[in-house]
Amino acid sequence: MATVGDLGEFGLISAFVGRFPQGPAVFVGPGDDAALLRTPKGHVVVSTDLLVEHRHFRQDWASATDIGRRAAAQNLSDINAMGGRATALTVGLALPPDLPAQWVLDLADGIAAEAALVGASIIGGDITRGTEIVVAITVLGECSVAPVLRSGARPGDVLAIAGRQGWAAAGLAVLGRGFRSPRSVVAAHQRPEPPYEAGPLAAAGGATAMIDVSDGLVADVGHVAQNSGVRIDIWSTAFTIDEPLQSVGAALGVDPLSFVLGGGEDHPLVATFPAGTTLPAGFRAVGAVTAAGEDGPGVTVDGAVYEGDPGWTHF
Amino acid sequence: MATVGDLGEFGLISAFVGRFPQGPAVFVGPGDDAALLRTPKGHVVVSTDLLVEHRHFRQDWASATDIGRRAAAQNLSDINAMGGRATALTVGLALPPDLPAQWVLDLADGIAAEAALVGASIIGGDITRGTEIVVAITVLGECSVAPVLRSGARPGDVLAIAGRQGWAAAGLAVLGRGFRSPRSVVAAHQRPEPPYEAGPLAAAGGATAMIDVSDGLVADVGHVAQNSGVRIDIWSTAFTIDEPLQSVGAALGVDPLSFVLGGGEDHPLVATFPAGTTLPAGFRAVGAVTAAGEDGPGVTVDGAVYEGDPGWTHF
Repeated sequence: MATVGDLGEFGLISAFVGRFPQGPAVFVGPGDDAALLRTPKGHVVVSTDLLVEHRHFRQDWASATDIGRRAAAQNLSDINAMGGRATALTVGLALPPDLPAQWVLDLADGIAAEAALVGASIIGGDITRGTEIVVAITVLGECSVAPVLRSGARPGDVLAIAGRQGWAAAGLAVLGRGFRSPRSVVAAHQRPEPPYEAGPLAAAGGATAMIDVSDGLVADVGHVAQNSGVRIDIWSTAFTIDEPLQSVGAALGVDPLSFVLGGGEDHPLVATFPAGTTLPAGFRAVGAVTAAGEDGPGVTVDGAVYEGDPGWTHF
Repeated sequence: MATVGDLGEFGLISAFVGRFPQGPAVFVGPGDDAALLRTPKGHVVVSTDLLVEHRHFRQDWASATDIGRRAAAQNLSDINAMGGRATALTVGLALPPDLPAQWVLDLADGIAAEAALVGASIIGGDITRGTEIVVAITVLGECSVAPVLRSGARPGDVLAIAGRQGWAAAGLAVLGRGFRSPRSVVAAHQRPEPPYEAGPLAAAGGATAMIDVSDGLVADVGHVAQNSGVRIDIWSTAFTIDEPLQSVGAALGVDPLSFVLGGGEDHPLVATFPAGTTLPAGFRAVGAVTAAGEDGPGVTVDGAVYEGDPGWTHF
């Protein structure tokens, strides 16, 4: 089986790039010193995320295709969280030379499949040697209305969520114990399904602040609270604990609500809307915003400080 | 001395981002899900490059500031090679937790200083844990005229170069033997000085094809020849062998011309211009373009196939 080292840089890049169709917004795609992308609105939304093997993924826990989908989804979700639509990605890879070349092509297929969900093209990148696999993706996009920042939540706003929450954390817990089922939560960890339609809908529907849940619900709502200078109370009873989360909780002896409150990587959107706003399709109310008060900005769950793990930290 | 692990993700990001002033083209800088950048021309030029420790830099061979400058320069040079001007960068870092935090801040200072040379802002990024240092930079820019691709060279064109060539390779050769002098070539390896003015001048001055020399002169001119379907002859006598290259060649027993022909990482620009064009400031003629003929596209040096090392490969 051919390795990355066998193919060499140019052979690998050529095969890799061949997996990526180029959309109409692309003037110049891969193969030159830089790519050229049309940006009709006179601005571009940009975000970068890195995935490192063993830290963010394991080859034995997910296929290369799923890892590619997840790497792309994580980045595309950042544009979604601004209320934007992604148009293009660049992909930087550090790869051990003994890695099977097929793994890299499967990764490319996963990235391409996820990007296709939102109509984005992979327009450039870089491949080099490293001792561990690093996938560095930068995503470019546009907003048709003003972007929704983390800093706009105001007292009186309603907190709402769109998309699945807690499934990926339950999947990770299962994999961490050496199990492969329930299949549904394992699949949710391997391949998130961010609600890509929800971001632009929230922006158009009057959202005052928005973030995607990538680190953990309490942690990420905490970023909105801090940046907006408010307190946000999350209503745990507003979350249905889906059946597979109940099963996993029972099997592992943990409260399944911890998957919902502490879990990340499902990439739902949480947004705040002025009271009385008709929530856009897909959103449901799960909390409320109040003034920071004397305790300062922060998050509570059912009115109390959350004592569980609020989410993932990178060091 | 505080390490990356001591500061934690958010402490480190906060200190890192504090090093980066934001220019007028930035709507939304670091700290949200994505950044927003103004793109007045309705398009954006994009390029991504990764630097991996031990592969592209060594902590004992260059300061963190110089590594930051080099990482930024390598990326900015890709926009230069399109004839564009860089406006913004994102910086993704994988970092071992025991790395001194000061190293990361010095790296930031180097990136900021190099970006300031062209007026570009660092608008976003990601920091995560890894076993080796990876610096993944994506650069965004604009072109005021049509971009200059690698594919436009035509028979009859003149090949011209702007910027220093061979110094970084001489510096690398010196460092590889355990020496630290001549200081001028070591400094050239540690911190390239790409001719950032030359790219837009070449684009405005009628360049038909352009590339920056990052892998090696013969290798990179070879990319232009292949993409344009032409033969390009490099005239070795058109290159002055600068004094420090002569000294290094004599000391190491190698032909100093090999630094010029095989060396990369100085990031000069090589461009082709129609015969008779007045070359833009900074460019000098160093070769000629002819039809591919029966041997097909490729590069010769003084009319013959170059037998030396044509340049760097990534695997």
